[in-house]
Amino acid sequence: MKIILDAMSGDNAPKAQVIGGLTAAEKLGVDIILCGNKDIIEKEMAAYKGDTSRITIHHCSEVIENEDDPIRSVRRKPDSSITVGLNLLNEGIGDAFISSGNTGAVIVGSMQILGVIEGISRPALMPVIPTAKGPCALLDSGANAVCTPENLCHFAIMGSYYMNKVMGIENPRVGLINIGAEEKKGTPLTKEAYKLLKEMPINFTGNIEARHIPAGNADVIIADGFTGNIVLKLYEGMGKFLLTKFKDILMSNIKTKIAALLIKGEVGTFKKSMDYKEHGGAPLLGVNKTVIKAHGSSDAKAVVSAVRQAMKAVESNLTEEIKNCVKINE
Amino acid sequence: MKIILDAMSGDNAPKAQVIGGLTAAEKLGVDIILCGNKDIIEKEMAAYKGDTSRITIHHCSEVIENEDDPIRSVRRKPDSSITVGLNLLNEGIGDAFISSGNTGAVIVGSMQILGVIEGISRPALMPVIPTAKGPCALLDSGANAVCTPENLCHFAIMGSYYMNKVMGIENPRVGLINIGAEEKKGTPLTKEAYKLLKEMPINFTGNIEARHIPAGNADVIIADGFTGNIVLKLYEGMGKFLLTKFKDILMSNIKTKIAALLIKGEVGTFKKSMDYKEHGGAPLLGVNKTVIKAHGSSDAKAVVSAVRQAMKAVESNLTEEIKNCVKINE
Repeated sequence: MKIILDAMSGDNAPKAQVIGGLTAAEKLGVDIILCGNKDIIEKEMAAYKGDTSRITIHHCSEVIENEDDPIRSVRRKPDSSITVGLNLLNEGIGDAFISSGNTGAVIVGSMQILGVIEGISRPALMPVIPTAKGPCALLDSGANAVCTPENLCHFAIMGSYYMNKVMGIENPRVGLINIGAEEKKGTPLTKEAYKLLKEMPINFTGNIEARHIPAGNADVIIADGFTGNIVLKLYEGMGKFLLTKFKDILMSNIKTKIAALLIKGEVGTFKKSMDYKEHGGAPLLGVNKTVIKAHGSSDAKAVVSAVRQAMKAVESNLTEEIKNCVKINE
Repeated sequence: MKIILDAMSGDNAPKAQVIGGLTAAEKLGVDIILCGNKDIIEKEMAAYKGDTSRITIHHCSEVIENEDDPIRSVRRKPDSSITVGLNLLNEGIGDAFISSGNTGAVIVGSMQILGVIEGISRPALMPVIPTAKGPCALLDSGANAVCTPENLCHFAIMGSYYMNKVMGIENPRVGLINIGAEEKKGTPLTKEAYKLLKEMPINFTGNIEARHIPAGNADVIIADGFTGNIVLKLYEGMGKFLLTKFKDILMSNIKTKIAALLIKGEVGTFKKSMDYKEHGGAPLLGVNKTVIKAHGSSDAKAVVSAVRQAMKAVESNLTEEIKNCVKINE
């Protein structure tokens, strides 16, 4: 298997991407193509002491910045690591593409270069969030600010397949995020989507209120991209805020500092369970090949998780499975 | 001043409402009209040892349950504590109405019985959420699942006035909840609302991403009722989830139990700062009189906070201020 990795994008690029890629190649036994400036990548590679035999560098001269307009940048920067990486994937030179860069550019580029699966109305970005009962898929979380009921049904099918095939969850529970449990609650979008979701070949468990998300009441949460993005960001923000507050409490005086030492191990285990770096990135479901959008602030460890996740998605033949499922349900 | 209190609605009614009402009357020096079944209220009152001279009971025979349809129940149960309480308020027999009951019924009843302020397109439910920089108003949080850009502008004016006049915040920072900081991010609703909000006589600080809410980057957060309700519920859910997890950690073994004792005081202070019971209820802004929707799970302490809040709103002449402001901006 060969994974194409955007080495130039992300808050900690190129170091985190290069070291993450090298580590993944060596530890997971996978070929990695690093897309980016050859000189810069080679300089970062020089610091790595392990085996680099599974690494290829594909030089490209441009980088799409976070501030660049997503729609225009893919075409205006044809030699950028995102555009080049997606082209390599499209040509079959690799099996999956990973980027920690401009989310909009990764989405638009994937749609333009790889194309959307026939029968899928819109692709969806699907991060996995930690809950009391394990990881939970949240889609769409930002690819489409405005959605139709049909879009939400396609998200439900794709999310269900992913959680089953890639994450190994039997019969994943699919919930529609809404402002009440009853079928008739919410907006015209959620009301119509509820009706359609009931008829889909998935384990639709009805509406889920936002307050029940952290408890893990669903394995797949369906939302329009505006709502999903807000849930995702608030989830991150609240987690960070409360952990910081907690840390402040533990550091406030000598007594609390002693307490901090006593619970260090337990807090570490909990923090790990809440850490996005453990869960890889967000797959962009619904395009014709495997694309993973890693977190912008990914470190090398998060890049390794994203590579592992891409490998699982490729091994489980996810894209073909989605294609077949859509055909059957037409 | 006279506050009308729905004694029959809420998860802990009538006990919490009656004891909360009696405590508020005695401690805050305010007259309270308790609406509800006279026999039941008198039974609860018998347990109270303090001064009850400021209490009047207004008997009514019906209760709107949480499961009742909000739109129909107000008319179908004309002798319910919500309908009767709102009628008393409308007739000028009291200065404000507080209920911990069916949110939809309180909203619909207030609109039908009290009427919406001329010039305000839709009323909004405005809970206050705790942040790192103090309380923050979130509106609309559920009165209107679907909103227009004009609705959002009215919410901004009303929220600004409330935070200034009732909470004493100078020049409150108003943020529009969105999926990015840039003006052109989001849905057609947020894009159009951004344009209009820039022109309003408020301190509009632009879009606010959900991840920045807990840090306290705004004093007033504007959203359509669907988005606002999801933010509110997730905020509550995440807070509860993380505090429970934290408690589990502290109770996991002898070592952590010792730590728990060492940080007990500090954790208590923090929990208090995050407790909705300290902040009262959610005012329904935009109707012709002061209405407070207290949390469904209010205890007596939360009821006292809601009474204090209603008193402040009446004292600051909030409804008249909003009326005048709308006239000026027409």
